[in-house]
Amino acid sequence: MHTGFAFLEIGLTRQKNTINILFKNIFIITVGLLLYYLIGFNLMYPGDFNGYVGSIVPGISPPENGMTPDYADGGYTWWTDFLFQGMFAATAATIVSGAVAERMKIGAFMIFTVIYVGVIYPIAGSWKWGGGFLDELGFYDFAGSTLVHSVGGWAALVAVWLLGSRIGKFNKEGKPQAIPGHSIPLATAGVLILWLGWFGFNGGSVLSADPELTSLTLVTTCLAAAAGGVVAMVTSTIMYKNLDLTMFLNGILGGLVGITAGADVMTPESAIIIGGIAGILIVFAVAFIDKIRLDDPVGAIAVHLICGIWGTLAVGIFSTNPEHTFSAQLIGVLCYAAICIISSFLIFFTLKKTIGIRVSEREELEGLDAHEHGMDAYPDFRLNEH
Amino acid sequence: MHTGFAFLEIGLTRQKNTINILFKNIFIITVGLLLYYLIGFNLMYPGDFNGYVGSIVPGISPPENGMTPDYADGGYTWWTDFLFQGMFAATAATIVSGAVAERMKIGAFMIFTVIYVGVIYPIAGSWKWGGGFLDELGFYDFAGSTLVHSVGGWAALVAVWLLGSRIGKFNKEGKPQAIPGHSIPLATAGVLILWLGWFGFNGGSVLSADPELTSLTLVTTCLAAAAGGVVAMVTSTIMYKNLDLTMFLNGILGGLVGITAGADVMTPESAIIIGGIAGILIVFAVAFIDKIRLDDPVGAIAVHLICGIWGTLAVGIFSTNPEHTFSAQLIGVLCYAAICIISSFLIFFTLKKTIGIRVSEREELEGLDAHEHGMDAYPDFRLNEH
Amino acid sequence: MHTGFAFLEIGLTRQKNTINILFKNIFIITVGLLLYYLIGFNLMYPGDFNGYVGSIVPGISPPENGMTPDYADGGYTWWTDFLFQGMFAATAATIVSGAVAERMKIGAFMIFTVIYVGVIYPIAGSWKWGGGFLDELGFYDFAGSTLVHSVGGWAALVAVWLLGSRIGKFNKEGKPQAIPGHSIPLATAGVLILWLGWFGFNGGSVLSADPELTSLTLVTTCLAAAAGGVVAMVTSTIMYKNLDLTMFLNGILGGLVGITAGADVMTPESAIIIGGIAGILIVFAVAFIDKIRLDDPVGAIAVHLICGIWGTLAVGIFSTNPEHTFSAQLIGVLCYAAICIISSFLIFFTLKKTIGIRVSEREELEGLDAHEHGMDAYPDFRLNEH
Repeated sequence: MHTGFAFLEIGLTRQKNTINILFKNIFIITVGLLLYYLIGFNLMYPGDFNGYVGSIVPGISPPENGMTPDYADGGYTWWTDFLFQGMFAATAATIVSGAVAERMKIGAFMIFTVIYVGVIYPIAGSWKWGGGFLDELGFYDFAGSTLVHSVGGWAALVAVWLLGSRIGKFNKEGKPQAIPGHSIPLATAGVLILWLGWFGFNGGSVLSADPELTSLTLVTTCLAAAAGGVVAMVTSTIMYKNLDLTMFLNGILGGLVGITAGADVMTPESAIIIGGIAGILIVFAVAFIDKIRLDDPVGAIAVHLICGIWGTLAVGIFSTNPEHTFSAQLIGVLCYAAICIISSFLIFFTLKKTIGIRVSEREELEGLDAHEHGMDAYPDFRLNEH
Repeated sequence: MHTGFAFLEIGLTRQKNTINILFKNIFIITVGLLLYYLIGFNLMYPGDFNGYVGSIVPGISPPENGMTPDYADGGYTWWTDFLFQGMFAATAATIVSGAVAERMKIGAFMIFTVIYVGVIYPIAGSWKWGGGFLDELGFYDFAGSTLVHSVGGWAALVAVWLLGSRIGKFNKEGKPQAIPGHSIPLATAGVLILWLGWFGFNGGSVLSADPELTSLTLVTTCLAAAAGGVVAMVTSTIMYKNLDLTMFLNGILGGLVGITAGADVMTPESAIIIGGIAGILIVFAVAFIDKIRLDDPVGAIAVHLICGIWGTLAVGIFSTNPEHTFSAQLIGVLCYAAICIISSFLIFFTLKKTIGIRVSEREELEGLDAHEHGMDAYPDFRLNEH
Repeated sequence: MHTGFAFLEIGLTRQKNTINILFKNIFIITVGLLLYYLIGFNLMYPGDFNGYVGSIVPGISPPENGMTPDYADGGYTWWTDFLFQGMFAATAATIVSGAVAERMKIGAFMIFTVIYVGVIYPIAGSWKWGGGFLDELGFYDFAGSTLVHSVGGWAALVAVWLLGSRIGKFNKEGKPQAIPGHSIPLATAGVLILWLGWFGFNGGSVLSADPELTSLTLVTTCLAAAAGGVVAMVTSTIMYKNLDLTMFLNGILGGLVGITAGADVMTPESAIIIGGIAGILIVFAVAFIDKIRLDDPVGAIAVHLICGIWGTLAVGIFSTNPEHTFSAQLIGVLCYAAICIISSFLIFFTLKKTIGIRVSEREELEGLDAHEHGMDAYPDFRLNEH
C-alpha cells in the first residue's frame, strides 16, 4: 500500500524532488512501525482506560480487562492487529507528506511525523477503536475514513496553510498555474496498487473469517471505487472538455476513501451512490482548494479529508445497521477535526517559529534532492539518438 | 492484474500514446465493474435459463434453481464470484485495448467496451460458466483460455483488421518495421505482475478450500509459464540469433494463457508440454501476423487468441479427467469464435461507418495524448547534465 | 518477490545494461523453476538419505520414509513446498546476478545459474531442510538467512573477486568512484515490493495454520526491517552527513535478511535488536567491500552474505527456543561457506578458463544491451520541449 502512495506522490510531483519524497515515505513506514511498537499500540488499546487518553507502555499486549470489543476475534491476533494499525498510523503521515511536497524541510517533517504518528494518532484512534468515548457514543468508522484519512487530511490542511504555496503555483493575479508531475504512468500504477491495498485493508478490517461479510465488503469497496472514478471523469469532462486521467484517478481514490467508513454495512447500491458522490466532491473540492489559494500538489486534502468526512457521514445515512445515526457520525467528525487541527497546528506552528518548516527559495527552485540528499533520482538516464 | 496489463501495454508502445492507454485501462476496469453489476452478472448466471441468453436483472443474486454447478461452493460466495468475473470481463476488453493501441479513437473504444463487456461477454460466458448449452455438452474451460482470452483475442483480431496498421508499420514493399516501445522495464514488470495475478486467478478459480488441488493448480500454472518462456526464448534465439527479451516475456504469457483452460486437470509434466508448445506457437504466430500485415503492437492476438485456442484444445488431449474430449473442446472453440467474430465485427463495423474508429493522420503522428487528453505522460522529466 | 529484485537491480545500475539484467532475472525464474522440478526437489528432499547428497529423480514426490520433519504439515502440501523452494532456489541466483551486473557474459551466467540452482542449492539445502546432517546437529534456519541468502552471497563474493571491478569503479589511486544507477524510484519500489514478498516468504515458512505464530513472525519481520532501515540511515547520516536513501533501503533489506533465520523464535524486542545491528553492519560492510576493491554494484554481498551470517548466528544468541545453540549455528555457517565457496569457485574458474566470464572492454563501455540483446531499454523515450 505504501508502494502505491509513494508511486502516486512522485508521479504527480517534479523530478527534482523525487528522492525527497521517497525518503519521507520510507522514513514514515519504518519509524512509524517502531514508534507504534514503542508507544502507540498500548496508547491506542489501553487496559485501564478513562476513555480519552491511554497510558504509555512499550510493546504489544492485549488489554487485561478485555475491552476493545471490535478486535481480537477468532483467527485475528494482537500481532496482526499491530501490523494493521501500524500501517494505518503510517498512512496518516503519508497523506501529509504528499500535501507538503516540494517545499517543506525534511527535518521538520520528520519531527512532525514522530509526534503525530507516535502520539496523536493513537490517542485519537483510542477514542473509537480503543473503546473510548466515541465508541461508547455509537460512532462508527469501519476502516478509517475518519480515523486514518481525515486524521491525515486535517493535518495536511493545516500544514499547507502554514507552509504557503510553491513558487510559481499562483501567478500575480492569484490564478492557479498547473505544475505537472514527472511521471503519470507511475501515478497511475500507484492508484491501482492502492486499490489493491484497500482490498487488503478493508478485507482485513472485517476481522473475522466470515467469507460472506468479507466478500461483500470487497464488493462494496470495488463498486465505490469504480463509481467514484467514472463520476469524477464524467464530471470533469463536462466541466473542462478534456478526458482528464488524473481526475479519473483521484475519483477512484475518493470513492475508496468514501466507502472506507462503512464498507461492511452497505448494500452494493449504496456503495455506488457513496462512491459517485465522492467522485463529484473530488472535482469541486480540487477546484475550490485552488480557488482559496491553498497549494496541495497531489490533491490529498480533496481525497482524504473531504471524502473522508463524506464517507463518515454517509454511514449515518446509508448504513444497514439501524444503530448508526447521523448525529453520532457528525459528533465523531467534529471531535476528530478538533484534536487534529489543534494538535497539528501546535506542532507545525512551533516548528515554524523554531527550526522553520520551509526550505529556502534557492533550494526550492533547484530541488530538494540536490540540497537535502545530494542525490538525483535518475542519475544515469540518457536518451537514445533517434 | 490490471496493473500488469497496463504496464505491459504502455511499455511496448510509444510514449506519445501512454496517457491514452492508461485512460483506456482505467476506463475498462471501472466501467466494466459497474456494468457487470448492472447487467452482466445475472446475464451470465441466469436463474431460469434457456441455455443461450439469460435475462437482464441488475444486481448480484444467486440463481434460484441452483444451477451453475461449478460455483458457489463452500467458502466461495456469490460476492467473491462477482469480483472474479467482473475482473475477467474487464480483461477481455483490456486484450483488445493493447491490439488497437496508438491509432483507435477513444470514444469508439469506450462504446465498444460498454457493449462487449456489458453484453457479449456475459452471454458468451453463460454458455459454459452459467450452466448453458456448452456446459451441458461437456466443454471444459477452467479459468478462461477461451471464455476470457479467446473472447478478447477474437475481438482484437477483428479490430486490428478493420482499423488497419499504424503509419510506418509496413514499408512500401509491405515489410514489417519494428516500432519499439518506450520502456522495456515497465513491460517486464507488467509480465511479472501478470504472472502473480494469474496465481490469484487460477488459484481462486479452484473455488474450494482444498489445498491439494489449489496448490497443484499453482504448480501447473508456474511450470507452464516457465516452459513457455524458455521455449519461446530458445526458439527465437535459434531463428533470429538474438537473446530477445520481449519474446521471452510473450512466451511466459503464452504459457499462462495455454494452461488456463486446464490448470486443475493436468499433471506437471503435461503442463510443461502445454506451456512449451505455447512458447513455440508464440514465436511463429507473431511472425505470421506480421506477414499477413496485421499490426498488433503488443502481440495480443498471438498471446491471447492463438494460445487460448491451443490451451482449450489441449484439455481434450492432456486432461486427467476422462470426461474431457477433444471434440467437445473443439466445438466450444468454434462456438466462441462464431459469437465473438460476428458480434465484434458488427460493433466495430457500425462504429467505423458512423463515428469512425481511427484517429486522423495528424493525431496519430503527434500522439493521442496531446489530442485526446491534452496531457503528456512525463511532463516534467528532465535529463541531468552529465 | 522477483519483481522486487529486478526493480532494485535495474534501478541501481546503468541504463545501458538494463535489458541484460531483466533478461537474466527472467531466465533465473523460468529455468530455475523447471530445473527445480527436473532435478532439485527430490535432490533436496530425498527419500532414502545418507544425510549429505540425495538422489536425482525428476518430479515432485514426498519422501517415502516420511523424513523432513519441518515440512508437509496440515494444509501445506508438497506442491506448495515445491513453489516456495523453487522460488528460494531462484533467489540464490538472483543475488549473484546483481553483484556481477554490468560486466559478466550472459552465456557464462546462464551456465552458472543452471548448475548452482539445479545442483548445488538443493544439495546444500538438503543438509538442513531435507533432514540432513546439519538438521540432525540442531542447526536452525527458519526461512533461509543461510540456506538462501548466504548461499547466494558466497557465490556473489567469489564471482565479484574473479570478475574484477567495472571499468571506472576504482581510479588510479584505487579510490572507489560512485557509479550511480539510472532510476532510484525503481530501486525504492523494488525494496518495498521485496518487503511485501518477505511477508509471504516468512509468513509462508511457518508452514502451519497457527495464526498466533504466523502473525508473530510477520511482526518480527517488520520490526527488524524497520530497525535495520532506521539504524542504517542514522549511521550513514552520522558518518557521511547526508540523508542517503540507498543506505536506508539497504538497511531495510539487511534487517529482513537478518531476521529470516529466526523470525519465528524471536520476541519483538530481539527482532528490533537484530535488525538494528544488521543496519550498522550494512553501512560498514559496504564501505569495507569498497575498501578491499571489490565491486558489487548493488550491495548484494553486504546485504545477503554479511547480514545472512549475522542473522544465522543471532538465532544462537536470541532464540526463545533453548535448543538453539550458538555453536550449532556457527558450524552451519561454516559448512555452507565451504560448499558455496568451493563449488562457485570451481564453476566460475572453469568458465573463466574456457568460454570467459567477462565481456570485452568495448562491450562494457557501450553497454550489454546493445551487444548481447540488440535492444535498448527505453527505445522511444523522448523529452518534452519545456
